[in-house]
Amino acid sequence: MKEITLKVEGMSCGHCVSAVEGAVKKLGADGKVDLAGKSVTVKYNEQTVSVDAIKTAIEDQGYDVAK
Amino acid sequence: MKEITLKVEGMSCGHCVSAVEGAVKKLGADGKVDLAGKSVTVKYNEQTVSVDAIKTAIEDQGYDVAK
Repeated sequence: MKEITLKVEGMSCGHCVSAVEGAVKKLGADGKVDLAGKSVTVKYNEQTVSVDAIKTAIEDQGYDVAK
Repeated sequence: MKEITLKVEGMSCGHCVSAVEGAVKKLGADGKVDLAGKSVTVKYNEQTVSVDAIKTAIEDQGYDVAK
Protein backbone atom coordinates (compact mmCIF):
# COMPACT_ATOMS: atom_id res chain seq x y z
CA MET A 1 0.00 0.00 0.00
CA LYS A 2 1.17 3.51 -0.76
CA GLU A 3 -0.15 6.80 0.55
CA ILE A 4 -0.36 10.15 -1.20
CA THR A 5 -1.83 13.48 -0.20
CA LEU A 6 -3.31 15.52 -3.05
CA LYS A 7 -4.27 19.19 -2.92
CA VAL A 8 -7.87 19.56 -4.09
CA GLU A 9 -9.61 22.88 -4.77
CA GLY A 10 -13.33 23.47 -4.61
CA MET A 11 -14.45 21.19 -1.79
CA SER A 12 -16.74 23.23 0.42
CA CYS A 13 -19.11 21.00 2.37
CA GLY A 14 -19.94 17.52 3.56
CA HIS A 15 -21.46 16.63 0.21
CA CYS A 16 -18.14 17.44 -1.45
CA VAL A 17 -16.35 15.21 1.06
CA SER A 18 -18.72 12.35 0.22
CA ALA A 19 -18.33 12.90 -3.51
CA VAL A 20 -14.53 12.83 -3.38
CA GLU A 21 -14.21 9.97 -0.89
CA GLY A 22 -16.84 8.00 -2.80
CA ALA A 23 -15.00 8.45 -6.10
CA VAL A 24 -11.77 7.21 -4.53
CA LYS A 25 -13.53 4.26 -2.92
CA LYS A 26 -14.93 3.21 -6.31
CA LEU A 27 -11.34 2.68 -7.43
CA GLY A 28 -10.78 0.34 -4.50
CA ALA A 29 -8.66 2.91 -2.65
CA ASP A 30 -9.26 4.61 0.68
CA GLY A 31 -9.51 8.41 0.75
CA LYS A 32 -9.85 10.78 3.68
CA VAL A 33 -10.67 14.42 2.93
CA ASP A 34 -9.35 17.29 5.01
CA LEU A 35 -11.84 20.03 4.14
CA ALA A 36 -9.98 22.83 5.94
CA GLY A 37 -6.66 21.65 4.54
CA LYS A 38 -8.11 21.42 1.02
CA SER A 39 -6.59 18.00 0.55
CA VAL A 40 -7.33 14.31 0.38
CA THR A 41 -5.03 11.60 1.67
CA VAL A 42 -5.39 8.37 -0.27
CA LYS A 43 -4.13 4.90 0.61
CA TYR A 44 -3.97 2.77 -2.50
CA ASN A 45 -2.47 -0.38 -3.92
CA GLU A 46 -0.02 0.71 -6.60
CA GLN A 47 -0.41 -2.67 -8.31
CA THR A 48 -4.05 -1.97 -9.10
CA VAL A 49 -4.53 1.82 -9.01
CA SER A 50 -2.49 4.65 -10.46
CA VAL A 51 -2.20 8.15 -9.04
CA ASP A 52 -3.43 9.43 -12.38
CA ALA A 53 -6.60 7.36 -12.06
CA ILE A 54 -7.17 8.79 -8.57
CA LYS A 55 -6.68 12.35 -9.80
CA THR A 56 -9.01 11.77 -12.76
CA ALA A 57 -11.72 10.30 -10.54
CA ILE A 58 -11.62 13.38 -8.28
CA GLU A 59 -11.59 15.77 -11.23
CA ASP A 60 -14.56 13.95 -12.72
CA GLN A 61 -16.49 14.99 -9.61
CA GLY A 62 -15.84 18.61 -10.53
CA TYR A 63 -12.80 19.47 -8.38
CA ASP A 64 -9.36 20.69 -9.34
CA VAL A 65 -6.41 18.53 -8.30
CA ALA A 66 -2.99 20.20 -8.12
CA LYS A 67 -0.54 18.68 -10.61
CA MET B 1 -49.92 28.66 -6.20
CA LYS B 2 -47.95 30.94 -3.92
CA GLU B 3 -44.30 31.90 -4.06
CA ILE B 4 -41.94 32.65 -1.21
CA THR B 5 -38.23 33.42 -1.07
CA LEU B 6 -36.43 32.12 2.01
CA LYS B 7 -32.94 33.12 3.15
CA VAL B 8 -30.87 29.98 3.67
CA GLU B 9 -27.40 29.88 5.26
CA GLY B 10 -24.77 27.25 4.63
CA MET B 11 -25.31 26.33 0.99
CA SER B 12 -21.91 26.26 -0.64
CA CYS B 13 -21.89 24.06 -3.72
CA GLY B 14 -23.90 22.22 -6.33
CA HIS B 15 -24.51 19.33 -3.97
CA CYS B 16 -26.11 21.74 -1.50
CA VAL B 17 -28.34 23.07 -4.27
CA SER B 18 -29.44 19.52 -5.11
CA ALA B 19 -30.07 18.70 -1.45
CA VAL B 20 -32.25 21.75 -0.88
CA GLU B 21 -34.15 21.61 -4.17
CA GLY B 22 -34.64 17.87 -3.71
CA ALA B 23 -36.06 18.31 -0.23
CA VAL B 24 -38.53 20.91 -1.50
CA LYS B 25 -39.50 18.72 -4.44
CA LYS B 26 -40.29 15.84 -2.08
CA LEU B 27 -43.01 18.04 -0.59
CA GLY B 28 -44.54 18.48 -4.04
CA ALA B 29 -43.29 22.07 -4.31
CA ASP B 30 -40.85 23.63 -6.75
CA GLY B 31 -37.70 25.24 -5.38
CA LYS B 32 -34.95 27.17 -7.14
CA VAL B 33 -31.79 27.94 -5.19
CA ASP B 34 -29.78 31.13 -5.69
CA LEU B 35 -26.40 30.09 -4.31
CA ALA B 36 -24.83 33.56 -4.47
CA GLY B 37 -27.96 35.15 -3.04
CA LYS B 38 -28.11 32.56 -0.25
CA SER B 39 -31.79 31.99 -0.88
CA VAL B 40 -34.33 29.61 -2.30
CA THR B 41 -37.50 30.67 -4.09
CA VAL B 42 -40.28 28.14 -3.69
CA LYS B 43 -43.54 27.85 -5.62
CA TYR B 44 -46.02 25.83 -3.61
CA ASN B 45 -49.69 25.01 -3.28
CA GLU B 46 -50.83 26.52 0.01
CA GLN B 47 -53.67 23.98 0.15
CA THR B 48 -51.23 21.10 0.46
CA VAL B 49 -47.93 22.50 1.79
CA SER B 50 -47.18 24.93 4.59
CA VAL B 51 -44.24 27.33 4.74
CA ASP B 52 -43.28 25.69 8.01
CA ALA B 53 -43.03 22.31 6.30
CA ILE B 54 -40.80 23.82 3.62
CA LYS B 55 -38.54 25.43 6.23
CA THR B 56 -38.34 22.19 8.21
CA ALA B 57 -37.46 20.15 5.12
CA ILE B 58 -34.58 22.51 4.32
CA GLU B 59 -33.38 22.56 7.92
CA ASP B 60 -33.46 18.76 7.97
CA GLN B 61 -30.84 18.87 5.21
CA GLY B 62 -28.56 20.74 7.58
CA TYR B 63 -29.11 24.37 6.56
CA ASP B 64 -30.30 27.36 8.57
CA VAL B 65 -33.45 29.08 7.35
CA ALA B 66 -34.03 32.66 8.48
CA LYS B 67 -37.16 32.98 10.63
